[in-house]
Amino acid sequence: MAANVIDGGQVRNKQVLLKDFVTGFPKESDMLFTTSSVNMKLPEDSNGVLVKNLYLSCDPYMRIRMSKLLRPSYIDSFQPGSPINGMGVSEVIDSKYQNLSKGDLVCGRTRWEEYSVINSPESLFKIQHKDIPLSYYIGILGMPGLTAYAGFHEICAPKKGETVFVSAASGAVGQLVGQFAKLMGCYVVGSAGSKEKVDLLKSKLGFDEAFNYKEETDLDAALKRHFPGGIDIYFENVGGKMLDAVLLNMRIHGRIAVCGMISQYNLEEPQGVHSLMNLVYKRIRMEGLLSFDYYHLYTKFLEMMIPQIKEGKIVYVEDIAQGLESGPSALVGLFSGRNVGKQVIAVAPQ
Amino acid sequence: MAANVIDGGQVRNKQVLLKDFVTGFPKESDMLFTTSSVNMKLPEDSNGVLVKNLYLSCDPYMRIRMSKLLRPSYIDSFQPGSPINGMGVSEVIDSKYQNLSKGDLVCGRTRWEEYSVINSPESLFKIQHKDIPLSYYIGILGMPGLTAYAGFHEICAPKKGETVFVSAASGAVGQLVGQFAKLMGCYVVGSAGSKEKVDLLKSKLGFDEAFNYKEETDLDAALKRHFPGGIDIYFENVGGKMLDAVLLNMRIHGRIAVCGMISQYNLEEPQGVHSLMNLVYKRIRMEGLLSFDYYHLYTKFLEMMIPQIKEGKIVYVEDIAQGLESGPSALVGLFSGRNVGKQVIAVAPQ
Repeated sequence: MAANVIDGGQVRNKQVLLKDFVTGFPKESDMLFTTSSVNMKLPEDSNGVLVKNLYLSCDPYMRIRMSKLLRPSYIDSFQPGSPINGMGVSEVIDSKYQNLSKGDLVCGRTRWEEYSVINSPESLFKIQHKDIPLSYYIGILGMPGLTAYAGFHEICAPKKGETVFVSAASGAVGQLVGQFAKLMGCYVVGSAGSKEKVDLLKSKLGFDEAFNYKEETDLDAALKRHFPGGIDIYFENVGGKMLDAVLLNMRIHGRIAVCGMISQYNLEEPQGVHSLMNLVYKRIRMEGLLSFDYYHLYTKFLEMMIPQIKEGKIVYVEDIAQGLESGPSALVGLFSGRNVGKQVIAVAPQ
Repeated sequence: MAANVIDGGQVRNKQVLLKDFVTGFPKESDMLFTTSSVNMKLPEDSNGVLVKNLYLSCDPYMRIRMSKLLRPSYIDSFQPGSPINGMGVSEVIDSKYQNLSKGDLVCGRTRWEEYSVINSPESLFKIQHKDIPLSYYIGILGMPGLTAYAGFHEICAPKKGETVFVSAASGAVGQLVGQFAKLMGCYVVGSAGSKEKVDLLKSKLGFDEAFNYKEETDLDAALKRHFPGGIDIYFENVGGKMLDAVLLNMRIHGRIAVCGMISQYNLEEPQGVHSLMNLVYKRIRMEGLLSFDYYHLYTKFLEMMIPQIKEGKIVYVEDIAQGLESGPSALVGLFSGRNVGKQVIAVAPQ
């Protein structure tokens, strides 16, 4: 910390700002770095906590926040000229909040900067199990993990022997859905965008089969090849043409959990989906989810996951970029599929 | 019947055949009339029943069967050169099936002809309550009725005070959904395609509001006007642009029952739906249904409906075309919205 000290308890605080609202694919130049300063002691009248950010999360939904959102939504736009915000793992440096003390480790919403003052500290989760990689708390044990768990178990209601298809299958959420499906005794196939990812799905993540969607000229045919008897459960991460092809291949009484549609976020207008009558023909249930509707399951989820992680029954692939400086590149890389596994920025790894 | 007698128990049997597979909007000339003959006594080795068809049902899904279906579906294509088939109310003329006798009234799948031999008589439902218009058994007490009941109560899980939107609201299914919604204490708005239908929705069917979608240049704005706080439940009968506009106006944790998409059946390719990310933003559940998944509820449904019909608590608007000759025109009329209420063909009314 010494290098950052200015004087009187002030230290330099490097930040990543959104330059302006983004249209189309985001570029690194849509963000810029600045340095402000922060006092290492909170003022007496504060109710918040001061944290040092250790790990920051790059998630596809953040692209939506880079646009100027015209309709009320569950999320706001980022503010041009302000630091990007997102999920992170942080260490408490100073606290005026009774439930947190200096040295505590927390995960929750923070900003893309070295130090953050969090004025709603009740939203932070205090990390108890520190014998697990801390970055996991923004991945397998964070929003992506809970999303995969709730989306698969609560929405898809899987049964042993059912067929499961996961798109963006090596991503932060998809890789867990595939593993949950195998633990349930399902047959699971994933799609991803490179040979490396396809190999990873089959060798490390336990998928029965996987394919590179970029090498398929006919997604319908690819799905027919992998699911000659049809798909019972689709975990939707990409949208657009893949969803259209999946709808053609769903089985009767199939379930689709809609987690996200990453292929659509950079388009001026989302692609049209044409096969929705299959919802009727096959009596399909399709349901969108956001993890924060399932926080009541979080404790149960942690209790289930932690032993399985420790025993190696569930694994997690992370793509860790080093330093806040790598943030813009890491975030932008999500939309070209450059990341392999959950994209994390290690700001100040412990 | 005398006029139809040929000899030896044979009578003339007028039929409506599909001429050839249809593309685009169906025309009357896609069907043709022919006259075959039928024996008024079943042969001794028959296991079926001979019925005289009293009422035949015109339903939007029948358009799908007029196309050459390339994928396996819950329904087959009609066979060119063969009589169209669909739901009907019929009188048993002769029976080799132990559960049915001459004079019984039945509803179920039959053919567009004066007399039909039904070789799977176990699929027929024997009508017990004859003090209700018999045509109701292909409408309010038939497939449309059960569809409205199951779709609204089972899939939409309505709560008192919720807001409900119904498209094709004066149709065979929609008019019932609106009435069920009012009985539940919901606020319900319907869309239809003429002033006459809009008036009917408000004056006779109890909808709180209604609008003519053909007069709205901006469906999104029309829905915002009627649902400033958003839509909790959408009962989907039309698809396409209406679905897109509804998705923009759904509330969090909304439910969409997909009954059909009549606006799409005559298109070479269905329109694309672009707003599906709203399923995620609002955590919407969207589910397709076919009434035959809910036949286990049919007895309960009848017991609930019959008293309410007799007491006038639920009404039903029918559009009854007279004579088998009017069949092609009545069926084709569904797709221009010519019918007002449930389209029925009275072949041999009692």
